[in-house]
Amino acid sequence: MEQVRLGIIGIGGMGTEHAKGLLAGKVPELKLTAVADIRPARLEYAREHFPEEVQRFSDGRQLIDSGCCDAVLIATPHYYHPEYVIYALQHGVHALSEKPAGVYTRQVREMNEIAKKSDKVFAIMFNQRTNCVYRKLHEMISSGELGAMKRMNWIITDWYRTQAYYDAAGWKATWDGEGGGVLLNQCPHQLDLLQWLCGMPKKVRAFCHEAKWHDIEVEDDVTAYLEFENGATGVFVTTTGDAPGTNRLELTFEMGKIICENDRLEFDRLNENERVFCKTCREGFRKPEVEHLLPETDGMNEQHIGVMKAFAARILRGESLVAEGTEGIRGLTLSNAMYLSSWLNETVEIPFDEDLFLRELNRRRNTSVKKEDKGIVFSTEGTY
Amino acid sequence: MEQVRLGIIGIGGMGTEHAKGLLAGKVPELKLTAVADIRPARLEYAREHFPEEVQRFSDGRQLIDSGCCDAVLIATPHYYHPEYVIYALQHGVHALSEKPAGVYTRQVREMNEIAKKSDKVFAIMFNQRTNCVYRKLHEMISSGELGAMKRMNWIITDWYRTQAYYDAAGWKATWDGEGGGVLLNQCPHQLDLLQWLCGMPKKVRAFCHEAKWHDIEVEDDVTAYLEFENGATGVFVTTTGDAPGTNRLELTFEMGKIICENDRLEFDRLNENERVFCKTCREGFRKPEVEHLLPETDGMNEQHIGVMKAFAARILRGESLVAEGTEGIRGLTLSNAMYLSSWLNETVEIPFDEDLFLRELNRRRNTSVKKEDKGIVFSTEGTY
Repeated sequence: MEQVRLGIIGIGGMGTEHAKGLLAGKVPELKLTAVADIRPARLEYAREHFPEEVQRFSDGRQLIDSGCCDAVLIATPHYYHPEYVIYALQHGVHALSEKPAGVYTRQVREMNEIAKKSDKVFAIMFNQRTNCVYRKLHEMISSGELGAMKRMNWIITDWYRTQAYYDAAGWKATWDGEGGGVLLNQCPHQLDLLQWLCGMPKKVRAFCHEAKWHDIEVEDDVTAYLEFENGATGVFVTTTGDAPGTNRLELTFEMGKIICENDRLEFDRLNENERVFCKTCREGFRKPEVEHLLPETDGMNEQHIGVMKAFAARILRGESLVAEGTEGIRGLTLSNAMYLSSWLNETVEIPFDEDLFLRELNRRRNTSVKKEDKGIVFSTEGTY
Repeated sequence: MEQVRLGIIGIGGMGTEHAKGLLAGKVPELKLTAVADIRPARLEYAREHFPEEVQRFSDGRQLIDSGCCDAVLIATPHYYHPEYVIYALQHGVHALSEKPAGVYTRQVREMNEIAKKSDKVFAIMFNQRTNCVYRKLHEMISSGELGAMKRMNWIITDWYRTQAYYDAAGWKATWDGEGGGVLLNQCPHQLDLLQWLCGMPKKVRAFCHEAKWHDIEVEDDVTAYLEFENGATGVFVTTTGDAPGTNRLELTFEMGKIICENDRLEFDRLNENERVFCKTCREGFRKPEVEHLLPETDGMNEQHIGVMKAFAARILRGESLVAEGTEGIRGLTLSNAMYLSSWLNETVEIPFDEDLFLRELNRRRNTSVKKEDKGIVFSTEGTY
């Protein structure tokens, strides 16, 4: 079998987990041939735990230049994702970036311009798009059977993190090291799914609370109000401070209501379009009739493995990716708009002023305080 | 048995329903002795359907002055609630007002001042406070066992109304006739329960959409963001345009999460306070342990009948009311603050400028367009 030789840049929590999956043969068409990390302790870990033939580099660029990889998976801190993607694509190496696409859209826009001109594959780790529940939902919405969306409400608060989580790594939860908090680290999947399922909002008014539940620089509690092109409204609530949290997405359409919670869908389907019923019914308190359905999915949910399999299949045979790398900018646009709205204390329209965002971000980076790096790597097994 | 002689002022939808309940003997200590309505057609209805001994008046003041009632139940359009309450109390007659307490807090503040000086009973129809589920929740929160509240999220969108509902009465859903929409007509219960359970927020940022789903003047779609004194945040979403709607209240506390939906409570109780766990746990991804409980209630839910029974018992024996009339100002403060925030397009702090609110309201009343009154009275059975 033909295999793609893959290097992983950044073997902290996520990168190490990906390496283990590949070494366990979970993605037969990808062969782990190298890893890179700027931290000697992580390379030492790789020397001890990975097979001898997995080469080790202290710099991602050296790994790309070495010629031992056809493709790279980038799992560094967020600021470096675009940098390594660009370097890889410009040096003839395919790139799969961890989420988020970057920290600010201007940086990601530059990356996307380069990716569009490149003949190499550029993918992004939106592994939640492999979840059968979201795929089914996407299929139902795309089919048009639901009519226009009227409202969305996503409470995604099951990202509980302790103070120890934030204390483990020097870059975490600082403006300069990570560039954001729960919106940038935990929520890129939901923000991507939000735009994938509902489209991009036009207006965002967000309330980001920094250091609310943890001793950190960035936000760990967010409530955002959204308005979409067609007038639909939405709410997005997230935090790393709630235990137990909730992951409940409620969507209202002209043809009924869908609730996505506990890995299943519930669909209250109306017997007629509500917009028509409202205008034609002669009674004041009547409602359209409802049928309660549990839409079936195919049960498949390959997560990271699915994204990596599709990445290899695209490189080898031109098949579909789970998510094109260039699509990463959309979810990032949402989180950037939420930050900007909260910083300016006003509603932000999309597209927003990317230079203004960068100035505001840099102001925070300039006063960012470097933390001691304890070099602790928690297992991310079971997280996203 | 001693009975309180009760008059009902306003026999539209709600007033007629109350009259039927009393005539059916559901509140043994209240005896319906009179009704008043400015609409001849409603008095004609009363003549045809109510016993001969129920006197009829074309003016609520005449009813109060007549001496045939010890107490009145006021079920007129909202603007007139304070006016009749004041007239009743000042003329030695006990008053039970339908919700809301009024349309603007300045008006209600005047009413409350008079009520505080009166020795007559003043109650308000917050019948949802009789619901065993909310009573149990109130008891759990008040006991202190849950610790501080961290977050609340109430999606209360099961108020579906057709265009025919709004077209039925001339005063409905106009700024001049009703003074507001879903916040003022449908939501006073939830806004009262919100403050009863969670306390009053300090800041409100609301997005009220007028005539979004119906051909009306006032709002039929609202999303509001709240901030409480202790830093807790909240979301309140309501509409009369969603079918089927949702009534789901989620509250997060230091000791766990409570969901109130489908007339029952679910409580995920932590084995320790999250705030302590967060700071002391040495692992990054661990969570406090959770026990899933279904708190039991006493099953009692007397609704309007319960409020009326307590009203009579207070008058006859000084017992507890379901809700003191003067408490009506709190929920109204919430809806007024939501309107003001939306009108000004900014965050409003509570207490807000009541004169500014009234000026803004009057500006809308001045351009309000009077609708034809079709005189249709829909049965409100099964609504709140």
